Amino acid sequence: MVDSGEKARRYTADDLGLVCDRLASRFGSRFSIGQALRDQHASVLTWLPPQAPDGVVFPESEAEVAEIVRLCADHNVPVIAYGTGTGLEGHVNAPEGGISVDTSRMNAIVAVHAEDLDVVVQPGVTRKQLNDYLRDQGLFFPIDPGADASIGGMAATRASGTNAVRYGTMKDNVLSLRAVLANGEIIATASRAKKSSAGYDLTRLLVGSEGTLGIITEVTLRLHGIPEAISAGICPFATEKEACDAVIATIQSGLAVARIELLDALMVKAANAYSGLDLPEVPMLFLEFHGSEAGVAEQAERFGEIATDHGGGPFSWATKPEERTKLWTARHNAYWSGAALRPGGRSVASDVCVPLSRLAECVAETRRDIDETGLIAPIVGHVGDGNFHVQPIIDVDDPREVRACEAFLERMVTRALAMGGTCTGEHGVGQGKRKYLKAEHGEAALAAMRAIKQALDPKGIMNPGKIFSD
Amino acid sequence: MVDSGEKARRYTADDLGLVCDRLASRFGSRFSIGQALRDQHASVLTWLPPQAPDGVVFPESEAEVAEIVRLCADHNVPVIAYGTGTGLEGHVNAPEGGISVDTSRMNAIVAVHAEDLDVVVQPGVTRKQLNDYLRDQGLFFPIDPGADASIGGMAATRASGTNAVRYGTMKDNVLSLRAVLANGEIIATASRAKKSSAGYDLTRLLVGSEGTLGIITEVTLRLHGIPEAISAGICPFATEKEACDAVIATIQSGLAVARIELLDALMVKAANAYSGLDLPEVPMLFLEFHGSEAGVAEQAERFGEIATDHGGGPFSWATKPEERTKLWTARHNAYWSGAALRPGGRSVASDVCVPLSRLAECVAETRRDIDETGLIAPIVGHVGDGNFHVQPIIDVDDPREVRACEAFLERMVTRALAMGGTCTGEHGVGQGKRKYLKAEHGEAALAAMRAIKQALDPKGIMNPGKIFSD
Repeated sequence: MVDSGEKARRYTADDLGLVCDRLASRFGSRFSIGQALRDQHASVLTWLPPQAPDGVVFPESEAEVAEIVRLCADHNVPVIAYGTGTGLEGHVNAPEGGISVDTSRMNAIVAVHAEDLDVVVQPGVTRKQLNDYLRDQGLFFPIDPGADASIGGMAATRASGTNAVRYGTMKDNVLSLRAVLANGEIIATASRAKKSSAGYDLTRLLVGSEGTLGIITEVTLRLHGIPEAISAGICPFATEKEACDAVIATIQSGLAVARIELLDALMVKAANAYSGLDLPEVPMLFLEFHGSEAGVAEQAERFGEIATDHGGGPFSWATKPEERTKLWTARHNAYWSGAALRPGGRSVASDVCVPLSRLAECVAETRRDIDETGLIAPIVGHVGDGNFHVQPIIDVDDPREVRACEAFLERMVTRALAMGGTCTGEHGVGQGKRKYLKAEHGEAALAAMRAIKQALDPKGIMNPGKIFSD
Repeated sequence: MVDSGEKARRYTADDLGLVCDRLASRFGSRFSIGQALRDQHASVLTWLPPQAPDGVVFPESEAEVAEIVRLCADHNVPVIAYGTGTGLEGHVNAPEGGISVDTSRMNAIVAVHAEDLDVVVQPGVTRKQLNDYLRDQGLFFPIDPGADASIGGMAATRASGTNAVRYGTMKDNVLSLRAVLANGEIIATASRAKKSSAGYDLTRLLVGSEGTLGIITEVTLRLHGIPEAISAGICPFATEKEACDAVIATIQSGLAVARIELLDALMVKAANAYSGLDLPEVPMLFLEFHGSEAGVAEQAERFGEIATDHGGGPFSWATKPEERTKLWTARHNAYWSGAALRPGGRSVASDVCVPLSRLAECVAETRRDIDETGLIAPIVGHVGDGNFHVQPIIDVDDPREVRACEAFLERMVTRALAMGGTCTGEHGVGQGKRKYLKAEHGEAALAAMRAIKQALDPKGIMNPGKIFSD
């Protein structure tokens, strides 16, 4: 299906044996070479072939991570950082073998600085765990990829989600990081100051580096006050184009919408079935506004006018918190409700992102392409950012269907790039999108990325086979 | 006064002669080795000793920049990118000689994408030029360092200014860049998509790299709609501490204040004298709110309450646009009004940034230190970000005063670092703050930065003697 990236290992069986012996004696039951555990640490959520690591270790501190990396580096054995394994592009696969460094036991919330609106966490803390912890203090962390991912994984893949249109992505919400580099050295990328112009931006270099430059051992995140008022609503449109045009007008008007999500008719149908909703099965915007009572009312009114101007509506409110939760739970369950459209089928979730002005066209062409290809594939998107997801549900045992799906995904990326967009808005490169990086960035920029990789990881032991094609 | 960084040149007189001959024959009157022009291209706004380049060239296109860099690279001659020369830490000095690449003729606004809220500009476009151009379209670019700096220079130094508390800094507002690297290759760092997780963040790596990794040849910036309503006001406080505490409460409350600036009593006195105001000479917050008519009124009311709670007030409005302009012009003239406190004195502008919770303490201790040292030094700050400026006005011919000032600045940085802050919030490192990077980042992170520099500029020709101490 996809180039597996399997290649000659850079270490001998003796090297590996020695590393495993040392890890076993040092970490006891926190290290395992059991097949079941190794299989769980391969990429299991994706359509990419799983490639299990040779062993899995569960460090409990930064010092232990550094120890593991130094040991592996001494023997050229790859290290693959593992958060929750919910990445969609094969980030945790081990095409060259090596040791999976599972950070799930490093899940302490180290310090909340309410006055500074920041929090220091270990990488294994998940986003839901963090928000549960923060709620009593009136604070929240807005980044919400579909899964209950770990903060370390979210930083490593530059994750975002439904709130990004207002609060930005991980690149905007990570204040600083600590990480273990390939040489076993521990770095802190920045202070807790809200801004700095003191040297190269190592924070942003590590955010999105997918474990290829270092293993993230601590993250300082920006927090936000829970808004005084939150209101949510939905608005139907006759076509995706009209919905997208309403989105553009909304963003341009300066309305500080907190969430603005498009579900196409098929996605609405899937959500109705999976989440027990009874929405009209037409393209639909889900919205949320954050602010003061008066502020959210004003924003809602203005959005209602914009929707009407673009042939949409009626815009209806979910005034009760439980109604709002039901809507957004349905939205967050998009992946599972999509998958349920074809029981037994395999979801192939992919995303692209284009400039907002090209969004309507890109979504419409993609919808037409899906239909002409004969795929079952709902579309759902963070359309305020020009980012949308397509989720073909395929029979992986039908090679013709698999080929058709692959060809479709390639056309989708080509289309997004031709419109001045990117091959992935938030899923990352992993293994699945390596082949598009040259087309997106060009030879010279890709060579600069490789030079950085080579400079910081000359032995190539940090999550090999990701981001870069060989 | 400061380590000048002057060192053995890495090229011979013959190399330089050859480069100059080629540039002269290729660029005609757009290349000069005239002393006056070279002197203008040394750091003239700072207290750092000016170090003129060997020649100045005025390219008119990216291709010409690439040609210049390749020629210089072939002969190991340094290239120093030059925007408007308004940097405050000696960024444009040429301690090892070389060619100043003045981008002022690359000042075209390439494309405005109103629907996407972005604009593509050449690096020599200045922020005022850009905003004049955008005004008719209802759009603006918020980043406003004091000077009318070039966008290329602002990107290279990770500039910010008074609006950063709401709109972020250059790191948040540069969507993508084009740059010529040390090998003469041209890279584009990203597409125009609002977000991407496709590979390393070269955009943020170049933002703040101060010309040491490449010369920026084009910048795509995020824009914002001019708010429907803007309101401004001022609020006196008895002490800096009370003012800072009011700032913390404002930020924590989630009030999306657009600007919140502290002027200490001496700065207010300077502004009164220089800008013809008659404000009470006590610590003062200047504020601005952006939003709808109802929104800014609500924000103002809420801020008024917070100020009262912290012993400040009365909060008074500048309701007329001309009043508002007068206030903010006075704020933007802080550098010049500060300088006018001591005619004939030299301004030594420096900045630090600390977590908000430490701001009051840091400002108060700094004020006490200034007074005990016997310096004349107003304080003004972007306090919503924890960032403040101190501007000692000194007699540079009095070695005792110079030493006292240096020692004071060193204590200020040490104090900020001890509070979890940074040695510079927005001025950059240049030559002046190189000596603090190890204390701020630690050996390992600084080594990672050096490794990146070495990987992308192995000959060390890109703006040598900046960021890194030798």
